[in-house]
Amino acid sequence: MDIGLVGLGKMGGNMRERLRRDGHTVVGFDRNPEVSDVDSLAALVDKLPTPKVVWVMVPAGEPTRSTVAELGELLGEGDVVVDGGNSRWTDDLANAETLQAKGIGYVDCGVSGGVWGLENGYALMYGGDAADVEKVQPAFDSLKPEGDFGAVHAGKVGAGHFSKMVHNGIEYAIMQAYAEGWELLEKAELTDNVTEVFRSWREGTVIRSWLLDLMVAALDDDPGLSQIAGYAEDSGEGRWTVEAGIENAVATPAITAALYARFVSRQDDSPTMKAVAAMRNQFGGHAVRTPAPKGGDAAGESKAPDQAAAAREAGAGSGREPAES
Amino acid sequence: MDIGLVGLGKMGGNMRERLRRDGHTVVGFDRNPEVSDVDSLAALVDKLPTPKVVWVMVPAGEPTRSTVAELGELLGEGDVVVDGGNSRWTDDLANAETLQAKGIGYVDCGVSGGVWGLENGYALMYGGDAADVEKVQPAFDSLKPEGDFGAVHAGKVGAGHFSKMVHNGIEYAIMQAYAEGWELLEKAELTDNVTEVFRSWREGTVIRSWLLDLMVAALDDDPGLSQIAGYAEDSGEGRWTVEAGIENAVATPAITAALYARFVSRQDDSPTMKAVAAMRNQFGGHAVRTPAPKGGDAAGESKAPDQAAAAREAGAGSGREPAES
Amino acid sequence: MDIGLVGLGKMGGNMRERLRRDGHTVVGFDRNPEVSDVDSLAALVDKLPTPKVVWVMVPAGEPTRSTVAELGELLGEGDVVVDGGNSRWTDDLANAETLQAKGIGYVDCGVSGGVWGLENGYALMYGGDAADVEKVQPAFDSLKPEGDFGAVHAGKVGAGHFSKMVHNGIEYAIMQAYAEGWELLEKAELTDNVTEVFRSWREGTVIRSWLLDLMVAALDDDPGLSQIAGYAEDSGEGRWTVEAGIENAVATPAITAALYARFVSRQDDSPTMKAVAAMRNQFGGHAVRTPAPKGGDAAGESKAPDQAAAAREAGAGSGREPAES
Amino acid sequence: MDIGLVGLGKMGGNMRERLRRDGHTVVGFDRNPEVSDVDSLAALVDKLPTPKVVWVMVPAGEPTRSTVAELGELLGEGDVVVDGGNSRWTDDLANAETLQAKGIGYVDCGVSGGVWGLENGYALMYGGDAADVEKVQPAFDSLKPEGDFGAVHAGKVGAGHFSKMVHNGIEYAIMQAYAEGWELLEKAELTDNVTEVFRSWREGTVIRSWLLDLMVAALDDDPGLSQIAGYAEDSGEGRWTVEAGIENAVATPAITAALYARFVSRQDDSPTMKAVAAMRNQFGGHAVRTPAPKGGDAAGESKAPDQAAAAREAGAGSGREPAES
Repeated sequence: MDIGLVGLGKMGGNMRERLRRDGHTVVGFDRNPEVSDVDSLAALVDKLPTPKVVWVMVPAGEPTRSTVAELGELLGEGDVVVDGGNSRWTDDLANAETLQAKGIGYVDCGVSGGVWGLENGYALMYGGDAADVEKVQPAFDSLKPEGDFGAVHAGKVGAGHFSKMVHNGIEYAIMQAYAEGWELLEKAELTDNVTEVFRSWREGTVIRSWLLDLMVAALDDDPGLSQIAGYAEDSGEGRWTVEAGIENAVATPAITAALYARFVSRQDDSPTMKAVAAMRNQFGGHAVRTPAPKGGDAAGESKAPDQAAAAREAGAGSGREPAES
Repeated sequence: MDIGLVGLGKMGGNMRERLRRDGHTVVGFDRNPEVSDVDSLAALVDKLPTPKVVWVMVPAGEPTRSTVAELGELLGEGDVVVDGGNSRWTDDLANAETLQAKGIGYVDCGVSGGVWGLENGYALMYGGDAADVEKVQPAFDSLKPEGDFGAVHAGKVGAGHFSKMVHNGIEYAIMQAYAEGWELLEKAELTDNVTEVFRSWREGTVIRSWLLDLMVAALDDDPGLSQIAGYAEDSGEGRWTVEAGIENAVATPAITAALYARFVSRQDDSPTMKAVAAMRNQFGGHAVRTPAPKGGDAAGESKAPDQAAAAREAGAGSGREPAES
Repeated sequence: MDIGLVGLGKMGGNMRERLRRDGHTVVGFDRNPEVSDVDSLAALVDKLPTPKVVWVMVPAGEPTRSTVAELGELLGEGDVVVDGGNSRWTDDLANAETLQAKGIGYVDCGVSGGVWGLENGYALMYGGDAADVEKVQPAFDSLKPEGDFGAVHAGKVGAGHFSKMVHNGIEYAIMQAYAEGWELLEKAELTDNVTEVFRSWREGTVIRSWLLDLMVAALDDDPGLSQIAGYAEDSGEGRWTVEAGIENAVATPAITAALYARFVSRQDDSPTMKAVAAMRNQFGGHAVRTPAPKGGDAAGESKAPDQAAAAREAGAGSGREPAES
Repeated sequence: MDIGLVGLGKMGGNMRERLRRDGHTVVGFDRNPEVSDVDSLAALVDKLPTPKVVWVMVPAGEPTRSTVAELGELLGEGDVVVDGGNSRWTDDLANAETLQAKGIGYVDCGVSGGVWGLENGYALMYGGDAADVEKVQPAFDSLKPEGDFGAVHAGKVGAGHFSKMVHNGIEYAIMQAYAEGWELLEKAELTDNVTEVFRSWREGTVIRSWLLDLMVAALDDDPGLSQIAGYAEDSGEGRWTVEAGIENAVATPAITAALYARFVSRQDDSPTMKAVAAMRNQFGGHAVRTPAPKGGDAAGESKAPDQAAAAREAGAGSGREPAES
């Protein structure tokens, strides 16, 4: 089929390649002229036969919304826009409504597969009317993995991104699970080689998975992960999953734990723990640490504030004494 | 090789079968005479050539401890006991010490694979001295899966069960992750068929795994899981993992969330939430529910206690009013 | 001062009384004619001198929004609307903008105190322009507790409800904390009388608080809390607090734990735990429970599905065997 | 009464003072000769009339155990040892058994109050036989706060420390609750002055408490808590509470969240999050950060590993592309 593809980054570029390998005619547009096939969105639309199908693969939020809006001006009745980015499913409802007014169809598609998708195929979860989905089906068939699974028409508009969102929420918690186990094995120092324990789990165990394979690959690349900081971004879907849980009164404690661990990983110092340290110091005279100076040691010096100091001077002794309250 | 196998339940029985298929001579003992090859532990030991290797496959705790102690009386220098059950790694240290006094070797082995192990092989994580492990190696080689992975000499005594314990802790959190995602998809009702969404994830996604395959199998067996109550036992390793985390000051929030969800799943009524309801009622006059009568409806009637009732009588009106504090 | 008060439920009715006791002229309106001073919102507005101050005390969401909208039609430049309900702070921004177009001021006010506020005073957190706040100040002064604290001009519009929202989020976690401790003391059965332990904590401890006093009162009213089901509603602020945390990348694990415990407390059966049970059953042949029949026993019968049954028949024995994977 | 007091640190020193103010004869011993009344434990015992009561106030664990053992050699039938430290309740059972063999009584006493106890009194939770408790009662009466509450004979030996342990577990979660709320208010920047919001909560609110008063005092001492690092030790009781919960299958998610936040606060870099970052990088080519060099900037440089780099070179473009999987 002929298809327009907007956004030729890490994901979009590989998807263009995979579609072309399967014989499709892809017109790609990117703001970066070095990778773009055309020099404008209008030029992309011009090159497509009717009904035109344009797949949008740009970041979620404003970039996707503005691209869809622009396509709404360029496309016409019977054409279809596919949002293959990581948009929030609530955006889909708005986008679909905007396009529907002009008779343009809308399909939302969650795409999983990362840098491995070019060779292995991309998992696809899409939502929309059957008639619109049908126009994109040849592309779906080429992008998906070769086996029996990997693609699903999940429901109406929004169902694709909602399913992908939940997929990513699950992914957060699974990664957190392996990571917690890894830290525990490393810290306990009972095993000779934690990497070999993880490697052994790749077959025969209950927890064998693709993410486990990747964890082993990462450990092989960088034994002990000494070159990677304990810092993880979150990309939206984890937050949205927790929010969707709250909206539906569904408790998601494992997914939430994974999300919060990422929040904390990005803090130089935790205000929450500053407050805990401050309260402990007030009631117990527990020594506190001062924040690390910029560019200095990570751990600041210990400091007992005035009240505790006074208490110690008044009657304190050996320092061998009960802690906390 | 010749090997004794104590405990011929679901796991032990299948392991005997897998060992025999691979040409080993297995003498099995079980308290159930219908499945036992000999009528006593002493008879089992008698039938083995020296050095004798006896694999114990009975429940963790007292059953394993007493079996190991009994073997300590029956075996001699150079023999080896393998504990293949789900013992706590701290038990291994005690068992090994007991046997060492008599020159008997000890190997602890965590075994994963469940009812699928007979055909697919069992993942094995074992700990102990190299000389002891060597005597059991032919059995390990037959029990493990056929591929490159699935077995590891994790370290000294205790390292096997510790690794298996962490494996199971991870397993708890991964199951919780899929389960949370499933509840959210079911509750949100945006997707047409949650089973098909899960099925599609089996290929090309980041979260593809064996547990996902099993979840799809379960959904195929029992669509909507209408025949299964939301009730899950825990078998020790989850608790021990969290405890090992605490001992090592390693936070395991996702694994802990999974463990706690199981605790709560087994309660008819939550004392914690009784207390929360009682406090809310005290400050806000919020109505409380009375416990469900035995054999009656799950939800008891609503009841506002005296103070709240008095407050309403004194000045209350429409009932259209702010809630909580 | 003269003030209109819309909503005379549990909270509003008591607030009218407290204002009148302090000499204010309060015109109250409620849909329930038995408690209402006037028969319409228009009549309420008519009775007030200029600048008119109208305090809205109805449920958050649509009831508050529609009441504010109606007041926007009835009031004029220089008048002030106070929303004293438990509105989400984001609603305040919308309400203020609507009224501002007509020159009407808007103050949002979080109110805490429950059924005790009539006698002890209400804690007030309000947001808005200083000129608008000034017009309401005499009412704030009468409603607040007598001491040095209990009222704060927290910032611009929205700051009042945001502060009250965080207050309630903290409240959720504090109640959860006491409740967890109570369940543990009750379950461990080491103490002779858990109520007396809680009562002793009311003085000299680090955890003495008003909520603790209420918990003791609840235990005195209903020893063992046998008359209260473990079922707790949530009223919005807890959810909004967690959502605000997510929006600001602030981890709120204790508050979130409290919120999720409420979600779970309201479920007859947990879909998440159905899925966990289903997966355990698939890999390990672990017995599952069937759901309790309506009107029957809480615990359904145990059931091992076909595969596990077949596995046991093929080779199983004593049942004394390792659990989990 | 006459009483021996072992350990004259921050807590013990103040307790000696409070007992003396109330007319008791206290013989104090501390390894620090500057504060000690006698030069050995034996000298302390010699100075006491029969039946001798010795209160031990040294750190939990080995120091307490060895002190109790030494007292077992020095005391005789009818004497009583009180452990007022923060011992684990399981230690009490062992200590009591050791002493019982010689007819020496044992009382365990959890003490709360911190540096404020000297003036306000200490909350006391004690366990032991009634006859033993009776011999210590005059000291309990002087140490406790003046009001109706603050002391409880919680049950048999161990019940005192168990109650205190749960008290501290609750304390962890309550501190965490306020701290989370504080971080959220600070981060959201909707309120003009977070300290004033907290101060206002001291009266009329549901969350008024002594810990809140302390939090306000801390904020007054150090606005914004800029002089305190987000670093908090844990002193045992929090861990033991979670462990007791696990042993009793009681979920304690809020208390556990507070404990884990402390664990994480003490890490320069989180191995768990290193693993999460490594997995994300493997599947998505997400950039990772390298660890901060010692003595250098807190945030290391961003680094995209080879595979991701290759992927981008092969087909990547604008960088405006979907994140995560």
